[in-house]
Amino acid sequence: MSKILIFGHQSPDTDAITSAITFSYLQNALGKETEAVALGKTTAETQYALDYFEVETPRVVTTVAQETPEVMLVDHNEAQQSVPDIEKVKVLAVVDHHRIANFQTANPLYYRAEPVGCTNTIILKMFKENNIDVPKHIAGLMLSAIISDTLLLKSPTCTQEDVKAAEELAETAGVDLEAYGKELLKAGTDTSSKTADMILNDDAKNFPMGGLTVRIGQVNVVDVDDILNRKQELLEEMAEQCTNNEIDLFILVTTDVLNSNSVALVYGEEKAQVAQAFNKELKDDTLMLEGVVSRKKQVVPPLTVKFG
Amino acid sequence: MSKILIFGHQSPDTDAITSAITFSYLQNALGKETEAVALGKTTAETQYALDYFEVETPRVVTTVAQETPEVMLVDHNEAQQSVPDIEKVKVLAVVDHHRIANFQTANPLYYRAEPVGCTNTIILKMFKENNIDVPKHIAGLMLSAIISDTLLLKSPTCTQEDVKAAEELAETAGVDLEAYGKELLKAGTDTSSKTADMILNDDAKNFPMGGLTVRIGQVNVVDVDDILNRKQELLEEMAEQCTNNEIDLFILVTTDVLNSNSVALVYGEEKAQVAQAFNKELKDDTLMLEGVVSRKKQVVPPLTVKFG
Repeated sequence: MSKILIFGHQSPDTDAITSAITFSYLQNALGKETEAVALGKTTAETQYALDYFEVETPRVVTTVAQETPEVMLVDHNEAQQSVPDIEKVKVLAVVDHHRIANFQTANPLYYRAEPVGCTNTIILKMFKENNIDVPKHIAGLMLSAIISDTLLLKSPTCTQEDVKAAEELAETAGVDLEAYGKELLKAGTDTSSKTADMILNDDAKNFPMGGLTVRIGQVNVVDVDDILNRKQELLEEMAEQCTNNEIDLFILVTTDVLNSNSVALVYGEEKAQVAQAFNKELKDDTLMLEGVVSRKKQVVPPLTVKFG
Repeated sequence: MSKILIFGHQSPDTDAITSAITFSYLQNALGKETEAVALGKTTAETQYALDYFEVETPRVVTTVAQETPEVMLVDHNEAQQSVPDIEKVKVLAVVDHHRIANFQTANPLYYRAEPVGCTNTIILKMFKENNIDVPKHIAGLMLSAIISDTLLLKSPTCTQEDVKAAEELAETAGVDLEAYGKELLKAGTDTSSKTADMILNDDAKNFPMGGLTVRIGQVNVVDVDDILNRKQELLEEMAEQCTNNEIDLFILVTTDVLNSNSVALVYGEEKAQVAQAFNKELKDDTLMLEGVVSRKKQVVPPLTVKFG
């Protein structure tokens, strides 16, 4: 008999990958024959967690119906986020923490959703309800997912249940929650192997403002010094790209995901006016932006007011 | 602050009514302010259970948005089975044992579905998970719902979990499972207050067969003698209706819901041929139909073959 496949959403993050693994462990302990698979490659963050707890990376599948008639979904339910041939298989179970939409079945099923910060918080509860022990490596993966989804318990989606689960899982996994958490998030935001061009442009957009072309890039980090230590290199790259691409102002917003602050590095003749837009003064071409995390909502509007 | 309303589906059966009451009890014990309401009148069966365990009948609502912004659904999820203004309120939680369809939310919610025979089997589990004691009257209502949905643990939808839950709940409720179960189902199929005309026609349809008009009624009972003891009265009513309404053959199928058998009472000149259609002989105008419960699938086809 073919195994029941269990998988999270496309473009999988740490919760999507690990909840497939942890839920598959639970189902197998309860007597089902299941296999955790993935709908895409693991990120650097997820790979760090898998390597740390010595768990094999799940194989990637692009369709499922050719190998199994039955699946279970974790960390998603909406059809457009799932495997493209989801309509051809029977969904036996869903464990999720998102809204429900674009989902329907022909038959009754097991569906477990709770408005918590992470799917693995729900799965931990299900281990307990079924009196199944959580082994060290499974605890480690669950913990990694909670850290990832809640940005080390700091995101507004984080609930008391997530906090409790994380503390308990850190003990079972034998790691220090804060220390491991920072290492994990750091692995996911590692910029050391990136060129200055990649840091500037991996997530950058041009904004026409008044007569100017303003290019704003953003990079998420755990330690802003990873970027600030490369200031000279980045400024030189900005200068070159401004000349080559007719950009008047280049702003790189480096966002500290743990503390929800940003530092802007600014290049261009009008750089002093950028500082003024935020009622600040430029210091060595940088600008502290306390509480700023959203380019769209917190960076672009004051600049638009300033440059018109 | 307005109370959160909790309700089951339209045309409520015993599970729909009682799961609203039992889930509301659980939610209130957990600190929420909720009220169980109903989307329709209770059946005789449900009323028997409410009276037996001295629980007030929930008030009937036809819309909810004018009195609360938030609701919880039990024993259903599909919009067309719910309150007509369901789109105007926020669904905080769902507990159900049906397929999922025509259901979507804007936000994450608590959703608990399991492929078991009765919503109350899931709710009992939730009481345990939250360490909330089940009082006698709540146990009695839960038990009544399981008996109702599984026809005293005999329907194909009944799972081992339902059986276990029913046994445990009977003890808490202080009733004998079999004896109480039969009384409850009997209350739901009580024909004593019905006229012969009501018994014959409450669920009857005409089928043209060959040149004949065949009218087939069906009535569900726990004790077929409730109907057979009124044979003369029923035959006289059949005779009159055949004359007045140009019916050639009148068949009343009395179905024993506990044992999944039926007895047919037949009136009309061609009555012997009805017996032949089932390879039987007519005995005092009645015909034992072992294993027959479905008019559409088990009664109409052999007659169509016989009469063409």
